[in-house]
Amino acid sequence: MGMDFGAAPLIAFDVLDLLGAFAFGLSGALVAVRRDFDVVGIAVLACCTAFGGGLIRDVLIGDIPPVAFTDLRYLVTALVAALVVFLWHPPERVRRVPLTLVDAMGLGLYCVTGAVKAASFGLGPVPSALMGVTTAVGGGMLRDVLAGLQPSVLRRDSELYALPALVGAGAASLLFYTGAYNWWTGALAALGAIVLRLLAVRYHWSAPRALRRQGGES
Amino acid sequence: MGMDFGAAPLIAFDVLDLLGAFAFGLSGALVAVRRDFDVVGIAVLACCTAFGGGLIRDVLIGDIPPVAFTDLRYLVTALVAALVVFLWHPPERVRRVPLTLVDAMGLGLYCVTGAVKAASFGLGPVPSALMGVTTAVGGGMLRDVLAGLQPSVLRRDSELYALPALVGAGAASLLFYTGAYNWWTGALAALGAIVLRLLAVRYHWSAPRALRRQGGES
Amino acid sequence: MGMDFGAAPLIAFDVLDLLGAFAFGLSGALVAVRRDFDVVGIAVLACCTAFGGGLIRDVLIGDIPPVAFTDLRYLVTALVAALVVFLWHPPERVRRVPLTLVDAMGLGLYCVTGAVKAASFGLGPVPSALMGVTTAVGGGMLRDVLAGLQPSVLRRDSELYALPALVGAGAASLLFYTGAYNWWTGALAALGAIVLRLLAVRYHWSAPRALRRQGGES
Repeated sequence: MGMDFGAAPLIAFDVLDLLGAFAFGLSGALVAVRRDFDVVGIAVLACCTAFGGGLIRDVLIGDIPPVAFTDLRYLVTALVAALVVFLWHPPERVRRVPLTLVDAMGLGLYCVTGAVKAASFGLGPVPSALMGVTTAVGGGMLRDVLAGLQPSVLRRDSELYALPALVGAGAASLLFYTGAYNWWTGALAALGAIVLRLLAVRYHWSAPRALRRQGGES
Repeated sequence: MGMDFGAAPLIAFDVLDLLGAFAFGLSGALVAVRRDFDVVGIAVLACCTAFGGGLIRDVLIGDIPPVAFTDLRYLVTALVAALVVFLWHPPERVRRVPLTLVDAMGLGLYCVTGAVKAASFGLGPVPSALMGVTTAVGGGMLRDVLAGLQPSVLRRDSELYALPALVGAGAASLLFYTGAYNWWTGALAALGAIVLRLLAVRYHWSAPRALRRQGGES
Repeated sequence: MGMDFGAAPLIAFDVLDLLGAFAFGLSGALVAVRRDFDVVGIAVLACCTAFGGGLIRDVLIGDIPPVAFTDLRYLVTALVAALVVFLWHPPERVRRVPLTLVDAMGLGLYCVTGAVKAASFGLGPVPSALMGVTTAVGGGMLRDVLAGLQPSVLRRDSELYALPALVGAGAASLLFYTGAYNWWTGALAALGAIVLRLLAVRYHWSAPRALRRQGGES
């Protein structure tokens, strides 16, 4: 319904979107383990993180009921991610690295698929890019709020988070509107956002804080 | 609109759904009292808890505007629950018991009505069961996030919470799709979920946590 | 679509709604500065606060995709608010006053525009007033939850918050249904809610807490 793009982009959308669900499912499950939740909590947080961004996107563009509820591959994907983390998860001292990695993957994949789905539902280029960012940061926000953590997108020690999503979503929106969106270009846009995010983490790129007054009274 | 089930199940749905709103309204109000909110805060948290699950359900299945806004019985029900708790509420040392009780009631009732309403809007059996769980845990999640508490569904010391909802929602979905859903079977499914939840609390049933590595480094 | 009210109320709606977005954008940005977020965090929290209430309203009344995504004036308004706070923001010791002021403005403007938009989408007078309150408190709730603060509407030391919104939304709903809604009466209803909120803050008006039992054991 409203999906007016051809078969190849559709498959590209599907594969990337399920990969995004898997990556965010892992990230939700890893946060759940860090917070010492039980297996049910791990499954619930994996689902909330994997579906959060897509649910928000689907509600906002009017794709009701959302695919996460009707296409059971999403549920299976999130539960597999939860199971993987339940059975095997890195010890405390090295947990930050895989969490950062899968979270960046979810961010990069969802910013692209969010923008493309919004565009395919008729939103213009700029709204589609915005929707891509919303899809990308929504799942992680929900994960962090439910786990009682400050959302990644606002965390002070978390380097650039929203900007890589904006770059990826903008590129995806552009690709879609120039008819150049397919499996490869979509994956490339996602990869660009992921690499940008990981570079920001690696080199501690961060945005400036609000200008302070003299005397540091602020 | 979309409600293609007969009059008897419809009444069953209505009664159970309003009972769910009342139970979650009480639970929201009790949490508000525990957090020392004023009467407005009690009313707001009662409404958020009573309407949260149903709102999420209605938005996700496309019943817009949601019944909580158009059918004023829901508002009155939530406000009566708030008033009851405002006028009479158990002292601190015995407050945990009634809160657990009414929260289990809300959980059991909403998992059934959420699944049945989703099914009546055309969702398949598995998506309907998922929607029932979402309806059941949504209100309590919103209550806990707004009150600055860890959501029940993830809390470590809260024994099985999502699983009883899944059992009740699965049963309700099955009843609906076999044409056996009515006041009595619906109430029975809700009762099953409630009893399961209370047994889990009573006997401290809990799900396993993620497998740990040797040496407890995890 | 669905907007069946004339041109003058429409302009009134637009101006007041954008003013509300600006006020809540400022309030989100001020909270972000208080929490020491960087410029991206300031922009994100300004957008979440400015769009939160309107998004909830649009989703609940079925105006999909929400105006915040399709009408780019909202994005520009929120980003300008973020920029203003980024460049100039009051020092710590006087920050509470401007935050209270712009938050009250957002509250007053959104309760009116939320009620009017709901009414123009066909909701009855009481549901429209409820929707106005939801629009008014939604953005601030999202802001506070994301920033890890207790929502204003529930905070104990925050005097009446939901009641001024209810008064403003009720007045706006009444004005709409009596055909008396226009730029001036709408602005007056918003002003009434703002003044009521500020008086409550100034004179520490607060609602009673739950009745306590003898001995203060509660």
